Amino acid sequence: MTDGFEDLGYARADTGRERRLGLPEVVYGPGKTAEQIVGVVGALLAANEGPVLVTRLDEATAAVVAAAVPGGEYDRAARLFVWRPASPRAFRVVVVSAGTSDAPVAAEAAAVARAVGLDVLELRDVGVAGIHRLLGEVEVLSGADAVICIAGMEGALPSVVGGLVGCPVIAVPTSVGYGATLEGVTPLLAMLSSCAPGLVVVNIDSGFGAAVAAHRMAVRR
Amino acid sequence: MTDGFEDLGYARADTGRERRLGLPEVVYGPGKTAEQIVGVVGALLAANEGPVLVTRLDEATAAVVAAAVPGGEYDRAARLFVWRPASPRAFRVVVVSAGTSDAPVAAEAAAVARAVGLDVLELRDVGVAGIHRLLGEVEVLSGADAVICIAGMEGALPSVVGGLVGCPVIAVPTSVGYGATLEGVTPLLAMLSSCAPGLVVVNIDSGFGAAVAAHRMAVRR
Amino acid sequence: MTDGFEDLGYARADTGRERRLGLPEVVYGPGKTAEQIVGVVGALLAANEGPVLVTRLDEATAAVVAAAVPGGEYDRAARLFVWRPASPRAFRVVVVSAGTSDAPVAAEAAAVARAVGLDVLELRDVGVAGIHRLLGEVEVLSGADAVICIAGMEGALPSVVGGLVGCPVIAVPTSVGYGATLEGVTPLLAMLSSCAPGLVVVNIDSGFGAAVAAHRMAVRR
Amino acid sequence: MTDGFEDLGYARADTGRERRLGLPEVVYGPGKTAEQIVGVVGALLAANEGPVLVTRLDEATAAVVAAAVPGGEYDRAARLFVWRPASPRAFRVVVVSAGTSDAPVAAEAAAVARAVGLDVLELRDVGVAGIHRLLGEVEVLSGADAVICIAGMEGALPSVVGGLVGCPVIAVPTSVGYGATLEGVTPLLAMLSSCAPGLVVVNIDSGFGAAVAAHRMAVRR
Amino acid sequence: MTDGFEDLGYARADTGRERRLGLPEVVYGPGKTAEQIVGVVGALLAANEGPVLVTRLDEATAAVVAAAVPGGEYDRAARLFVWRPASPRAFRVVVVSAGTSDAPVAAEAAAVARAVGLDVLELRDVGVAGIHRLLGEVEVLSGADAVICIAGMEGALPSVVGGLVGCPVIAVPTSVGYGATLEGVTPLLAMLSSCAPGLVVVNIDSGFGAAVAAHRMAVRR
Amino acid sequence: MTDGFEDLGYARADTGRERRLGLPEVVYGPGKTAEQIVGVVGALLAANEGPVLVTRLDEATAAVVAAAVPGGEYDRAARLFVWRPASPRAFRVVVVSAGTSDAPVAAEAAAVARAVGLDVLELRDVGVAGIHRLLGEVEVLSGADAVICIAGMEGALPSVVGGLVGCPVIAVPTSVGYGATLEGVTPLLAMLSSCAPGLVVVNIDSGFGAAVAAHRMAVRR
Amino acid sequence: MTDGFEDLGYARADTGRERRLGLPEVVYGPGKTAEQIVGVVGALLAANEGPVLVTRLDEATAAVVAAAVPGGEYDRAARLFVWRPASPRAFRVVVVSAGTSDAPVAAEAAAVARAVGLDVLELRDVGVAGIHRLLGEVEVLSGADAVICIAGMEGALPSVVGGLVGCPVIAVPTSVGYGATLEGVTPLLAMLSSCAPGLVVVNIDSGFGAAVAAHRMAVRR
Amino acid sequence: MTDGFEDLGYARADTGRERRLGLPEVVYGPGKTAEQIVGVVGALLAANEGPVLVTRLDEATAAVVAAAVPGGEYDRAARLFVWRPASPRAFRVVVVSAGTSDAPVAAEAAAVARAVGLDVLELRDVGVAGIHRLLGEVEVLSGADAVICIAGMEGALPSVVGGLVGCPVIAVPTSVGYGATLEGVTPLLAMLSSCAPGLVVVNIDSGFGAAVAAHRMAVRR
Repeated sequence: MTDGFEDLGYARADTGRERRLGLPEVVYGPGKTAEQIVGVVGALLAANEGPVLVTRLDEATAAVVAAAVPGGEYDRAARLFVWRPASPRAFRVVVVSAGTSDAPVAAEAAAVARAVGLDVLELRDVGVAGIHRLLGEVEVLSGADAVICIAGMEGALPSVVGGLVGCPVIAVPTSVGYGATLEGVTPLLAMLSSCAPGLVVVNIDSGFGAAVAAHRMAVRR
Repeated sequence: MTDGFEDLGYARADTGRERRLGLPEVVYGPGKTAEQIVGVVGALLAANEGPVLVTRLDEATAAVVAAAVPGGEYDRAARLFVWRPASPRAFRVVVVSAGTSDAPVAAEAAAVARAVGLDVLELRDVGVAGIHRLLGEVEVLSGADAVICIAGMEGALPSVVGGLVGCPVIAVPTSVGYGATLEGVTPLLAMLSSCAPGLVVVNIDSGFGAAVAAHRMAVRR
Repeated sequence: MTDGFEDLGYARADTGRERRLGLPEVVYGPGKTAEQIVGVVGALLAANEGPVLVTRLDEATAAVVAAAVPGGEYDRAARLFVWRPASPRAFRVVVVSAGTSDAPVAAEAAAVARAVGLDVLELRDVGVAGIHRLLGEVEVLSGADAVICIAGMEGALPSVVGGLVGCPVIAVPTSVGYGATLEGVTPLLAMLSSCAPGLVVVNIDSGFGAAVAAHRMAVRR
Repeated sequence: MTDGFEDLGYARADTGRERRLGLPEVVYGPGKTAEQIVGVVGALLAANEGPVLVTRLDEATAAVVAAAVPGGEYDRAARLFVWRPASPRAFRVVVVSAGTSDAPVAAEAAAVARAVGLDVLELRDVGVAGIHRLLGEVEVLSGADAVICIAGMEGALPSVVGGLVGCPVIAVPTSVGYGATLEGVTPLLAMLSSCAPGLVVVNIDSGFGAAVAAHRMAVRR
Repeated sequence: MTDGFEDLGYARADTGRERRLGLPEVVYGPGKTAEQIVGVVGALLAANEGPVLVTRLDEATAAVVAAAVPGGEYDRAARLFVWRPASPRAFRVVVVSAGTSDAPVAAEAAAVARAVGLDVLELRDVGVAGIHRLLGEVEVLSGADAVICIAGMEGALPSVVGGLVGCPVIAVPTSVGYGATLEGVTPLLAMLSSCAPGLVVVNIDSGFGAAVAAHRMAVRR
Repeated sequence: MTDGFEDLGYARADTGRERRLGLPEVVYGPGKTAEQIVGVVGALLAANEGPVLVTRLDEATAAVVAAAVPGGEYDRAARLFVWRPASPRAFRVVVVSAGTSDAPVAAEAAAVARAVGLDVLELRDVGVAGIHRLLGEVEVLSGADAVICIAGMEGALPSVVGGLVGCPVIAVPTSVGYGATLEGVTPLLAMLSSCAPGLVVVNIDSGFGAAVAAHRMAVRR
Repeated sequence: MTDGFEDLGYARADTGRERRLGLPEVVYGPGKTAEQIVGVVGALLAANEGPVLVTRLDEATAAVVAAAVPGGEYDRAARLFVWRPASPRAFRVVVVSAGTSDAPVAAEAAAVARAVGLDVLELRDVGVAGIHRLLGEVEVLSGADAVICIAGMEGALPSVVGGLVGCPVIAVPTSVGYGATLEGVTPLLAMLSSCAPGLVVVNIDSGFGAAVAAHRMAVRR
Repeated sequence: MTDGFEDLGYARADTGRERRLGLPEVVYGPGKTAEQIVGVVGALLAANEGPVLVTRLDEATAAVVAAAVPGGEYDRAARLFVWRPASPRAFRVVVVSAGTSDAPVAAEAAAVARAVGLDVLELRDVGVAGIHRLLGEVEVLSGADAVICIAGMEGALPSVVGGLVGCPVIAVPTSVGYGATLEGVTPLLAMLSSCAPGLVVVNIDSGFGAAVAAHRMAVRR
């Protein structure tokens, strides 16, 4: 191991990331073999103390990994593998999603947020075409330290939420929809163009990105 | 004059349009000289009985046209010239706009709608970042035969309105905004991707298109 | 059940929508399990009086749903499941399509329109490259309260129809074509840019959206 | 002069083009100084026998060029300078344009076509929203050896024309329109996606390209 | 049969097209059932005298069609079914393709051109990175009445060909390539932007469109 | 004044926003007359206690506004007008910019952040092509409660910063650059695609949006 | 064989390319049958002296080709078949890749570079989110005659490398990532917009293009 | 001065770049005041020994800078200011441009290349529509150590050049053209998609980037 990383040949595990960022490197599953994932996870578990995560992991690979690196847990809905989840902090994240089809992204956001120690609460199917469903939850929203707001199609939900509460609102566009939705590009652009002040946006379908963004907000309190 | 149109050389005035559509041809101002506009307007006034309109007309050209074809009125905010406005019908159009910067498009929509005989009522600056401003007007919206819903930036307003009322909602994206708004393409795509059922959309900044769409709905009652 | 919606955990059925819009919430099939669909349909049937629809439902899921929620009917061509179709109104919708390949979108538009009580008549394969096929049907078009006009490729059909009749013309771009058609984006942009006044446009392949737009026009008469 | 071109330092006049293509090189005006244009025109006049053209030339530069290279004529509407126009051939080109705003592109197409010896006839303002204006001219169209068909907005005109006549139809999209027209990209894509068989397309606003395409058809007869 | 078309319910065969355009309607295979194809082909064979074609037909459907409508021939490489090919005319079309991967598009262009009576000659794999391969064929090109020029990737071939010969050059972009080629959009835009004068362009991968464009040129001679 | 907003006719000042979000509504300058700005500012000053801001205000309009509503201050570099700046909080925001040309966006971010009470520190011209300039400031970055990271061109700076510190990193793409930078769309997409975990992104050139996002993070501490 | 190429019917092997460019033509595998590949490879082996390569060849086709043209070697990771690799030169190419998922592109770049005689050294997984991993390798980079720098997502790596070393940096965007990465278009545009001076860019995923670019640099020394 | 850069407040002059890259930092003119440019140039002249350049500098600012920092020279055509040009090396760069309108980009490429010590030779107006103009210069091209190949419109020139010579070919797309050229995006994509092996590409209109790329190739010899 050289200073701050371990060279595995096919990968350089960034073993110094926990010290710098307060969270070990997270492993992105796609494009890696089960063997590579096992190797990187092993290195990260050895060199860090905090939670080790693999995202977007399919069930078959997860089974191989589970056999090789015991002690972790696989969440099928979130496609997430977690070892050593962090102990909970008093930072409340409300994960709000616009429609039932946004569920996989919401699941990833919630599972990653819990794994890194945040206190998660979920509100589902509160899309703006039935705005009363959202307005009935203003109190829940007001108790949030941060809101993760997930929507596909026209991506209007974060604009409404951002006008209701003053805490950080992290908007996550999803690829839900068809035609003019352009696989999530439309809600992405819409969220970036929001008339609500101070919204922030992450990549399409990136429940993971939103959860880590919330973690960044939590660690600085 | 041949059957259904008059050939002016530089233009063929569609003199049969009033008979077919219930509304004379409307003259699109840009790219035409004052002389051409005078010519076409004259032909349309002569061959039809209903209102004759010139849209997107700048003030200087309007002055020349006014001198040559008396009896009309120019609306500076709407950039619209109207001769022989239609007598009013009992078809209520509510023109709702999201922000103060959308005013020119709202002005065009309202002025054209009035010129073709619709009963217009305006609601301004009811963007979704302060959703209570819109919710306070639900009764006004409920009295509409059609709503014209104008918004730039993320274009979320029609989705909320479309979930509140059952009448036709005509969404008009505007070029208001910057960066990711892409000069109106973002609200256009967002409105087309709306989760509210049965919204219809017209071209960017086309207050004119929305008003004529409302007229089509009115004439078939 | 809270006020206006029922929280099923995975979904909040918008049970107040029928009261607000005159039509119960319509269930979008993709991305939902058969169990979720059964649950939402049940909630909607219980809380409303009007028609309950599931769109874009594949045949296999439809069979499961049919077994669990009897009394409905599945339309394979339209991929639509309908319970309690509305009683017919005297609002004539003519569904015009440009080519044989546009048939699935036309089928959805027609089936949804019938399910919500509209009086539907279809004209197929009247694309503009053989314009006499359309011109032979002007009388049929003239009897319409609204025209739903479906076309892929260059999307020219609504421009011609919009110049022939004065009733509302709802343009539906389809993803039929290849190369420069860009999976329906080209006819979408073309329809929005139409020189025919007052056309309105819905999302690519959205026969559903067009039919509900027609319903909005019908209910306000 | 080396073989087939003359090196003027700032340009290599392609003096062999007339021999290869049957038409001398045409000078594209923008981005060239009056002095450079004078030089290239002089070289082309000396080395060829046919017509020499400068396109997209503004009036001020044209005046300088006219003084330095006498014997030519400047067409303000077409922004075209022509020396030694070709003697007329019996090849009839009908230049059809959809709207009055397309006039500058139609003027360029007609002027270039005449300069290279084609027999030009113009039909203006026959857009598809008043289809009877076009249908009244089928006989004129049937007499064409080639049709140049010019339209902005949704670009539907060539599809209708292409279904009426069997001769070559050269479609020219224009940048007329706003919003979803995307400065001519929409009619360009629409024309390429046309359901009418065997249409061919040139660049946006390129009346010049269409006229030379017609010339290529004429010379091979 | 009404005037000029036959209504088959699912389709309106444009039986008047041969009279108007000199070529019967061509059937586009995708999105049609074998039964529909059989029906339309039957109607077209009965009402016309010239060649009847089905394009982009897969082998399995072709077998069903062949059994139901005898007398035709299926070309697997071109995915084309032809009944009653036209008798040959003295109009030479040279089909030039840039690379071996462009072969399917070249095959369609050549087969359609032959079926409609043109005299076809093919030049393959003469891409511009080995320009001597093309320059060695200038004489062949000079004998053409029209050149169909097929290229993917950067689409440069038609620019070079268009500078070598004066006859019509019909450029066909293909979807060959990856990354920045954008599935044929890049060569399409490049061909439209060509510095060679008077090129004309058809849709991506449309060997069919190019062949019919050549037919239009041939019939007017 | 109705509940939570004041209807000025041309605008509805959202007077309830301070109560909901902890910050009064901010006035977006473009597209508003000086009179309208004066009116809205007056309403906001009267109904709220916190800072009132007008963004993107040109100098000429600012002078008119300053005369009508005394007590504020105009920042020319930031194009920002501020009345009643908030008292400072112990929340350190480090505004990092990649190049000298990004200065206007950095100025807006810093000025808005100061106006809403944040403790701002600026690092300029630390672009990644001279990475040592950034690495020399790691200690400064480590003292931040949030980093606002501003870059045009390839937008790489936030990825490096996001790998160095664990606090929130708010990425702001700018329209600095030319050609492939696509007026800021390229750095926008790059920042959204970052390999650094948990970055959040705001609209192109939106120093304002980034500062308010930081404020949201500060108020929840 | 005519001068400089051999006409195989389906292909014209550019047998003169080795003489002109110092490297025989390279065969692009996709879209060619095994038989065609065998034919072209045979012609190139016979007419040239240097290495013959087939790129992007799947394993199944490779097996057929291997049996027909002995003496070559297939590299599965690089999807490359090589006959007669060039003897090594003293030109050091360092292939740097940002993430483990970029491995296939890096493998192609390295394998092609070795096959054409370059001296290759690889650095893997040195993405900018853990910049110390790259900075620890500055000495290795300084020994390079050229660096091939491979990255997906935001494509920031070449900007940092280009600021560290003065030798040529060939940037290769990959299609690794999702959402806003747009299948490699985002890193492509980012690399072209880089603030580091004198970077050069090749097509998305084109390890091959980068390696041949390096070869061009090597042969001119 | 800290290690490797000098902090001027508004800028951090990268004084260590010459040591790392063999060339001092180059100043990008746009968006900087004359005073800022004077400051940065002064710092770079003091801390380095090699040439100091300011690119894209307008004439008015250049005059101010010239007065404040004597000893430099301004090249109006290239919009370049140079102090202490490097002594010439034996590395021949041939700058080839397709059309007369590409002259400003060619001028920048040539002037920067000369300023950094390369041996420059220019070939102008050798576009592919008159391919003999290029083929007559093969010997000149063969003497190049690197070719900078500049073209707008369809950007085909580098593909032909890249098939003629084996040295590095640096392709520069320009914004010359209209319509489908999309301000240089079309030739950019075309050059990246080239069928000629091993071409490398820089940003649109970046003569500067191409020249520095050539310098990188030269310094490693």
